[in-house]
Amino acid sequence: MTSGKDPNRPSVLGGPTIILVQPQLGENIGACARAMLNCGLTELRLVKPRDGWPNEKAVAAASGADPVLDGAKLYDTTAEAVADLNVVFATTVRTRGMIQEFVTPRVAATELRAHVDSGHKTGVLFGPERTGLVNDDLTLASTLITVPLNPAFSSLNLAQAVLLIGYEWFQTGETPPDRVLHTGQTRPATKAELVNFFEHLEGDLDRTGFFTSPEKRPSMVRTLRNALERMQMTEQEVRTFHGVVAALTGRRKGEP
Amino acid sequence: MTSGKDPNRPSVLGGPTIILVQPQLGENIGACARAMLNCGLTELRLVKPRDGWPNEKAVAAASGADPVLDGAKLYDTTAEAVADLNVVFATTVRTRGMIQEFVTPRVAATELRAHVDSGHKTGVLFGPERTGLVNDDLTLASTLITVPLNPAFSSLNLAQAVLLIGYEWFQTGETPPDRVLHTGQTRPATKAELVNFFEHLEGDLDRTGFFTSPEKRPSMVRTLRNALERMQMTEQEVRTFHGVVAALTGRRKGEP
Repeated sequence: MTSGKDPNRPSVLGGPTIILVQPQLGENIGACARAMLNCGLTELRLVKPRDGWPNEKAVAAASGADPVLDGAKLYDTTAEAVADLNVVFATTVRTRGMIQEFVTPRVAATELRAHVDSGHKTGVLFGPERTGLVNDDLTLASTLITVPLNPAFSSLNLAQAVLLIGYEWFQTGETPPDRVLHTGQTRPATKAELVNFFEHLEGDLDRTGFFTSPEKRPSMVRTLRNALERMQMTEQEVRTFHGVVAALTGRRKGEP
Repeated sequence: MTSGKDPNRPSVLGGPTIILVQPQLGENIGACARAMLNCGLTELRLVKPRDGWPNEKAVAAASGADPVLDGAKLYDTTAEAVADLNVVFATTVRTRGMIQEFVTPRVAATELRAHVDSGHKTGVLFGPERTGLVNDDLTLASTLITVPLNPAFSSLNLAQAVLLIGYEWFQTGETPPDRVLHTGQTRPATKAELVNFFEHLEGDLDRTGFFTSPEKRPSMVRTLRNALERMQMTEQEVRTFHGVVAALTGRRKGEP
């Protein structure tokens, strides 16, 4: 499922830059790169990674997201890392009594998309694993993002936090329809094909005395058709079920 | 940021059971437990974890989500793991040419919420790290979930996949369902009831020579079960279709 080719789709080009402030574990930086590329984000900036840079453990954890790691830029301070950006959001789980706007990742993603569409350079700050961002870093952000999670257990691993922001970002782009029925080589059955099958089934049920009384037949037929409609059968499946009914009634293809 | 008290909020109580099928690394199982508790999910089931159970690496990776690990239930087969559930969704990145409905995590979460609100027992299947779920497992699911991600780099770590489903589940909070399967006086069939019907049908098809060759039988059975799964039959409808099959084969109630 992993491949290196063209990780940037038009719809996700120019997504927010991800800025990791003093990340501690190389594994986490690599996992962040993987989560970023999953979401079509490729711009990674690192402020004073604890274990130095480059980092072999990061490469191992990136599971193929090397382009993100190779392109990562290093900075000494958060201020320098965001200097060229127009819009900076920051992630934090704690309210530090600062008067600042908090938004969910979903709202943040919509706002980031709007900024990107207006040609603004955007970025999202993530703090060190244990401590999170310090107030001086938070003051560099116009908006704070908090993820609505179980308040009794809300601590997210760094890469998971990056994934949730990236995921919501990606959902604002050209995403596939909410609901797709994959029919492979065949196509959805036409209503005519469906009704033809219903009548085949109901005809055999008439002969085998399934419908206990003429009065009940219409409602029983409705029940059967309702359920079978929900299958959204393909043309191929309709033929299969014709065969099933024929087999059960002991008739073979061609027989009346 | 982490604390053990009351991980279950009313709004997230009774969330979907997370079923990990043949998970390989203990670390991943632990990370899944952490992601689950982040999202207020506490019911974990494991089908044949490769490295056995309990697993110390899982505890380490859970970063305090021990209640989820302690409550995890073990199963030998996926079918047993879902037997008591009314509604089973499955996550997959690949289209395997099966005719089945795919939804996004967001839509899946809304539907799961609707089922939970209707008192149905729900679960979501996740496959092994490398290979994902096999077709026989997928046939136990009424709906397949795929996460819209960078198509050129879409492979998610197991815990990240669990997090995205759990995150969307948590976001549904108190929101009203937008799609419910109205079951009237009855309820969705349990997987056990469904499998029992499948076996009734397939047994009769064996006797009537529907399966043209032993080699073809498994794939033909999969095709039938796939289509029938999509009906999301109620318990009442399962009984009706038992009657349909019995009638077609010319047997009456009570006859062997």
